[in-house]
Amino acid sequence: MEVLSEHRCFGGTVRFMRHDSRVIGLPMRFSVFLPPQVAEGRPLPALFYLAGLTCTEETFMAKAGAQRVAAELGLVLVAPDTSPRGAGVPGESDHWDFGVGAGFYLDATQPAWRTHYRMESWICDELVELVTRELPVDRSRIGIFGHSMGGHGALTLALRHPGLFRTLSAFAPISAPSACPWGIKAFSGYLGEDRAAWAAHDASELMARQSAAPYPGGILVDQGLADKFLGDQQLLPERLEQACNQVGQPLQLRRHAGYDHGYYFISTFMEEHLRFHAQGLRTA
Amino acid sequence: MEVLSEHRCFGGTVRFMRHDSRVIGLPMRFSVFLPPQVAEGRPLPALFYLAGLTCTEETFMAKAGAQRVAAELGLVLVAPDTSPRGAGVPGESDHWDFGVGAGFYLDATQPAWRTHYRMESWICDELVELVTRELPVDRSRIGIFGHSMGGHGALTLALRHPGLFRTLSAFAPISAPSACPWGIKAFSGYLGEDRAAWAAHDASELMARQSAAPYPGGILVDQGLADKFLGDQQLLPERLEQACNQVGQPLQLRRHAGYDHGYYFISTFMEEHLRFHAQGLRTA
Repeated sequence: MEVLSEHRCFGGTVRFMRHDSRVIGLPMRFSVFLPPQVAEGRPLPALFYLAGLTCTEETFMAKAGAQRVAAELGLVLVAPDTSPRGAGVPGESDHWDFGVGAGFYLDATQPAWRTHYRMESWICDELVELVTRELPVDRSRIGIFGHSMGGHGALTLALRHPGLFRTLSAFAPISAPSACPWGIKAFSGYLGEDRAAWAAHDASELMARQSAAPYPGGILVDQGLADKFLGDQQLLPERLEQACNQVGQPLQLRRHAGYDHGYYFISTFMEEHLRFHAQGLRTA
Repeated sequence: MEVLSEHRCFGGTVRFMRHDSRVIGLPMRFSVFLPPQVAEGRPLPALFYLAGLTCTEETFMAKAGAQRVAAELGLVLVAPDTSPRGAGVPGESDHWDFGVGAGFYLDATQPAWRTHYRMESWICDELVELVTRELPVDRSRIGIFGHSMGGHGALTLALRHPGLFRTLSAFAPISAPSACPWGIKAFSGYLGEDRAAWAAHDASELMARQSAAPYPGGILVDQGLADKFLGDQQLLPERLEQACNQVGQPLQLRRHAGYDHGYYFISTFMEEHLRFHAQGLRTA
């Protein structure tokens, strides 16, 4: 694990890291915020943040404004990159919503992609392991959240790996990728045309299949009502809402008039997400 | 004044604007944050933020994390671009520290530059006028701050235009440009080789010439001690400190162990700068 750069921030440290990923077969990048409480020597709760299309491991640290409150609450923050880089799949950089910067937090099964595009295994197996081994992180107190494609990632990884992430929230998540243009394009490319395989990576379908609420403490989702992609039917939060109702999963889906899809929206509600997770991880 | 985009943020609005600048002779961009208090209809205090080398009108709004506290305090924020764009001066984009993105907040006098590179007149005459005419800004309660080249800009514009900016602070400012490589390059290019002309745009020299403290309420400057450019002798805050001592200007120059030159440093101390200005503008 190589430290590429390090920046003091709110009494803690933002670190940009690179490691040779065994799962992906390429060097992968992620960023970390270590709050001042690391000096106390006890393992701390951690929050994984998954970013959206075209983002990198830098976006969250630079734009979300999370460090102030994480420093107060003693939360470690971990922000992975959004895809492999340098896989060399033909055409992987031709689309902003598929391929590079758009890994969709799943393990691809299609021949062109399956060697390197394994974001789910990278995050849930290798990165969780790496972070809990190398940093003062308490493995039993990890939460996950994300934005847009990363909201899809947070929801699906949490539902597909019961017990791994104790708390869950999202900003404007792609809530039903099997039914929206971004998701259909990505799932067709990464998973092929078998729709049964898609359902296993669709937050609304995964939720609808639960026999009991997987997050009895609730899931928090914020959605701006001036979000262009909400209007374009890319996000479909009502499908997640319906699935949660169906299985008795408490969901706080907050719709905010006037807010759009970007980091001015995310930063506005970041503090409440961090406090939501900290509360859940405290009692975990 | 054309609104290019608008984003809800902390109950207020971030706006990206363009106008045809008479002074610069080109379209110029700036961003604005309007806090929720604009709804109350009274003119509000405002803060101009001048960004550093290579930055744009977006940098501050995206990375500094100022909107939360500005929304609480009822401060309008205005962040101009860092140079003309599209002036067409030969070689203007060849250097990251001179020309495009590096206007140094002065009116150039050298033939190649003097037509368009007039950042001082743009900000102090045209932009202050535009903002107070078109937005709910109280002209008698405007403060200024900035970072690096923009810290130089804030200090020099404040000292060169007595009474225009009621409060003043800076993050890691270029404090003595006549004596550092960045400043020598920029002043030679924009102002020519006459060192007397340089002194009129050098914060430390301007301060040393004052007959009384221009900011009796104090000036706030934050400087990271792990700032590479401090070590490279680009910033020279000790010269500003010495000049302030000489003329009895109260200066809070805070040196922060471990912090570097970037927005992780700036965002950490942003809240204290905003409260410093709000306090000064309240009593102005």
